[in-house]
Amino acid sequence: MEKVAFLGLGAMGYPMAAHLAKRFPTLVWNRTFAKALRHQEEHGSKAVPLEGVAEAEVIFTCLPTTKEVAEVAEALLPHLRPGTYWVDATSGEPEGSRLLAERLLERGVVYLDAPVSGGTLGAERGTLTVMLGGPEAAVEAVKPYLAYAKKVVHVGPVGAGHAVKAINNALLAVNLWAAGEGLLALVRQGVAAEKALEVINASSGRSNATENLIPERVLTRAFPKTFALGLLVKDLGIAMGVLDGEKAPSPLLRLTREVYEMARRELGPEADHVEALKLLERWGGVEIR
Amino acid sequence: MEKVAFLGLGAMGYPMAAHLAKRFPTLVWNRTFAKALRHQEEHGSKAVPLEGVAEAEVIFTCLPTTKEVAEVAEALLPHLRPGTYWVDATSGEPEGSRLLAERLLERGVVYLDAPVSGGTLGAERGTLTVMLGGPEAAVEAVKPYLAYAKKVVHVGPVGAGHAVKAINNALLAVNLWAAGEGLLALVRQGVAAEKALEVINASSGRSNATENLIPERVLTRAFPKTFALGLLVKDLGIAMGVLDGEKAPSPLLRLTREVYEMARRELGPEADHVEALKLLERWGGVEIR
Amino acid sequence: MEKVAFLGLGAMGYPMAAHLAKRFPTLVWNRTFAKALRHQEEHGSKAVPLEGVAEAEVIFTCLPTTKEVAEVAEALLPHLRPGTYWVDATSGEPEGSRLLAERLLERGVVYLDAPVSGGTLGAERGTLTVMLGGPEAAVEAVKPYLAYAKKVVHVGPVGAGHAVKAINNALLAVNLWAAGEGLLALVRQGVAAEKALEVINASSGRSNATENLIPERVLTRAFPKTFALGLLVKDLGIAMGVLDGEKAPSPLLRLTREVYEMARRELGPEADHVEALKLLERWGGVEIR
Amino acid sequence: MEKVAFLGLGAMGYPMAAHLAKRFPTLVWNRTFAKALRHQEEHGSKAVPLEGVAEAEVIFTCLPTTKEVAEVAEALLPHLRPGTYWVDATSGEPEGSRLLAERLLERGVVYLDAPVSGGTLGAERGTLTVMLGGPEAAVEAVKPYLAYAKKVVHVGPVGAGHAVKAINNALLAVNLWAAGEGLLALVRQGVAAEKALEVINASSGRSNATENLIPERVLTRAFPKTFALGLLVKDLGIAMGVLDGEKAPSPLLRLTREVYEMARRELGPEADHVEALKLLERWGGVEIR
Repeated sequence: MEKVAFLGLGAMGYPMAAHLAKRFPTLVWNRTFAKALRHQEEHGSKAVPLEGVAEAEVIFTCLPTTKEVAEVAEALLPHLRPGTYWVDATSGEPEGSRLLAERLLERGVVYLDAPVSGGTLGAERGTLTVMLGGPEAAVEAVKPYLAYAKKVVHVGPVGAGHAVKAINNALLAVNLWAAGEGLLALVRQGVAAEKALEVINASSGRSNATENLIPERVLTRAFPKTFALGLLVKDLGIAMGVLDGEKAPSPLLRLTREVYEMARRELGPEADHVEALKLLERWGGVEIR
Repeated sequence: MEKVAFLGLGAMGYPMAAHLAKRFPTLVWNRTFAKALRHQEEHGSKAVPLEGVAEAEVIFTCLPTTKEVAEVAEALLPHLRPGTYWVDATSGEPEGSRLLAERLLERGVVYLDAPVSGGTLGAERGTLTVMLGGPEAAVEAVKPYLAYAKKVVHVGPVGAGHAVKAINNALLAVNLWAAGEGLLALVRQGVAAEKALEVINASSGRSNATENLIPERVLTRAFPKTFALGLLVKDLGIAMGVLDGEKAPSPLLRLTREVYEMARRELGPEADHVEALKLLERWGGVEIR
Repeated sequence: MEKVAFLGLGAMGYPMAAHLAKRFPTLVWNRTFAKALRHQEEHGSKAVPLEGVAEAEVIFTCLPTTKEVAEVAEALLPHLRPGTYWVDATSGEPEGSRLLAERLLERGVVYLDAPVSGGTLGAERGTLTVMLGGPEAAVEAVKPYLAYAKKVVHVGPVGAGHAVKAINNALLAVNLWAAGEGLLALVRQGVAAEKALEVINASSGRSNATENLIPERVLTRAFPKTFALGLLVKDLGIAMGVLDGEKAPSPLLRLTREVYEMARRELGPEADHVEALKLLERWGGVEIR
Repeated sequence: MEKVAFLGLGAMGYPMAAHLAKRFPTLVWNRTFAKALRHQEEHGSKAVPLEGVAEAEVIFTCLPTTKEVAEVAEALLPHLRPGTYWVDATSGEPEGSRLLAERLLERGVVYLDAPVSGGTLGAERGTLTVMLGGPEAAVEAVKPYLAYAKKVVHVGPVGAGHAVKAINNALLAVNLWAAGEGLLALVRQGVAAEKALEVINASSGRSNATENLIPERVLTRAFPKTFALGLLVKDLGIAMGVLDGEKAPSPLLRLTREVYEMARRELGPEADHVEALKLLERWGGVEIR
């Protein structure tokens, strides 16, 4: 049976690799090697040094940014075998990934960008959505290996997966912040946020932010740490790169990056992304509730 | 049995009054009186001159703006009887409505703002959401008469209904425009809008705009005329008034009004609100699909 | 010889009234009466109770906002004599002033809005610029009394003076903040702010902000307190009112109010307006120099 | 005596090269060679094929963008001699210029970015301002050759000249557009633009836009074509790149690019940059005057 390899056992990668290990012989690698050993113990994968992953048919990466993926690829390059597929689940950037795809193709390795959505919970349950960028044939070839996915969508050529992911996260950002602005003004004028949301969520202004994030995390004051503000700002930067490719006027998404950058500078990159609304609350002098 | 009256038989008011007429003796009035006569014929209501509505226990209004409501109220004032309830379904503005409520209270008339969401379809089916602003006792008193509603939410004191409606529509506006910006950039880079939406609607960036408006109206190029751009810009103006009450920084909602104002000036107030994305398409040089 | 009266002996009004006292019999009034007594002693004016000012031919006001002017006018109303001119040097708002003008005209008093620019230094030296709003004949009638002015411009009907003042201050605000954004990025990339300004001030990007405010107050780190941030934000609010009158898209001025409102919330209303750039510096992690 | 060479005889380059030719033996090259021949005839320079310029001690370039400079440099590379200075008067971009500087240094050629301000008039009169980026020694070495300059400022390392130029133009853009927004609202409310500018230019809101561009070009309806809108948008793009290097929140400059991009799409890249205000006038329904 064909081997797969997974590089990058972070909050997302660790459980994703566990799903692979249930169905395929799975090699794992991590910069902090102890984590790979723990994965081997817990999930029956096999921890290997970096060069070791080259014997897999499909190599998965889930690293902080495209820069780390390119570095790992460069180090692996002499060991890679033609015909290997490289499935990059990193929330990376399109342009850098296109360059990487060309570089890998020189060795006969086919790169696909394959970022995911669904958060750590989706990773644990194996219900992630995968947005794939790459040639049709390669997409068909790797689909059977996406053991952590509930939904797989082939969105376009290499880079398209990253682009769609970045735009999705930008929409999350704008929908969330705008809802925060609106609710804050309502609360100051005697409307309970819960009542306002009850109406909005039965009306045309609803979004994932009003239906889920704000009721569950803001009104409860729970603000669980599921997706760091610094990472959302990174994704917003990638989204700006997608807009740069086009240059059409995009005032709302542009301004969205700016306000989240303000929040990152004021609250720190480790804050949860939903905590950005705390900056609005600070400016407004009330809590949204 | 108690009588009700309905003033303003427009695209929303006409079917709303029909639901009332099924359950209560219903007086109807309209500036163009022929419409009232038609309603009488079709729905068994009774067309009356303006003063005639004063004998109703509950007076409903559904007029273009708060200005028209205030004018009608001023004309009716000498005829109004203490204890009457005035339920204003207009998408009006909070501050003007608070003044109107005070004015009516001098005559013993209790005003509630009661804007609705759900569109003409919801009005016809009697499945509107009503957001009520006013004192608790009055809310309880008028609830039995809201024959066109599926959901009734008491959101706060007088004006709160209008405020929530305006903010809801502002969120609709920002979610829609931002999705347009993002999709346009993706389309230019080789991603089919349908594929992008398939991912976004299974992910964190989803909203009513991405789940319903854009797939049904933009991708199909149908752009049905259901809610005029000019009216959305009017509602955005009301939302700005809600923000003015507070003055907290609200950069995204502020900028949203500006871009829709641009669209209104370029496309005309009669265009449908979703057609605002056509301005983005013109700037971007491609259609979203 | 005709008497004048001056109400409001603040940082601007005190020296303005002193220039009047040099040339005309001058009555002075101030909420804190001790200040009026001090002015009498230092400048030979005559401190009077509020009703006392009604005997002047020309009444000057220089108060915090139009609200205070209207309150004082209401209290004075029974005492005012037809034919009196009311010259309002307050940085007030056009709409409220138009209402006030109508109210005063009922008593035969002619109101002109007459805000000034030039700062406390210009007030002391008597070199202020006065922007006058009101009927031509009244403008000609009051001109001889503007002893504190170097330049007098009749800009339009009542309210026009306030409108021009507010827009001027909004342009100050946008020019200053934008220069701050640009210089910050340059400084981070190894350019001395002084060198950048040397070029900009010989080029097309120059403004009062780059030629005077930033070199004298930011690069020196002096940040003297000459014009409070809270007052600039108030003026920005008036400018937004001017834009509201028109409703044309004005994205840059709208966003300018939002960012200064952020600065006011973070730095406090007592900070100097130029200190707004400190918020940019905090976000950027460097000083502009 | 040492030879210089000038590549790129456009609207700026042609008269700049003429100033060089008055003082130094000057080789000229242009893509459309006829222009070089005309320069030779009119100004006593010597038209040469591209390789021919390699014998100059100082090579000047003034081309549309950094891309064209890099292409020319690549073509010339085999012919270049160590110790040559390359003075790039293009309004180029910092990052690309840093790469080019490294590339040229491999051949011992020292690159300096040296964009200019002052327009075609300044080029003809030899009164341009030059902003130099590069090592101090090289700056001193090339200064004697800048025959077209009235003012030379060494602003920082390679790339700094381009960065300062881009930020200057971004400030021009924001100051101009914001003044347009403000004046438009005033004009609609009965204030003559000329009167408003008389006040503003004696007050704190003044800028090159209010002092020169708007009175001379907008109020007169002359809108002379001196600097194309498309080129200003290009420079705004470079300014965004300077901001990207830093990533600090820069909402006003970011939004400025977006609105000029709108103007470019609506009015075409060949319109003059000041004509951007015509888009505001179209939206506002009045002319600024």
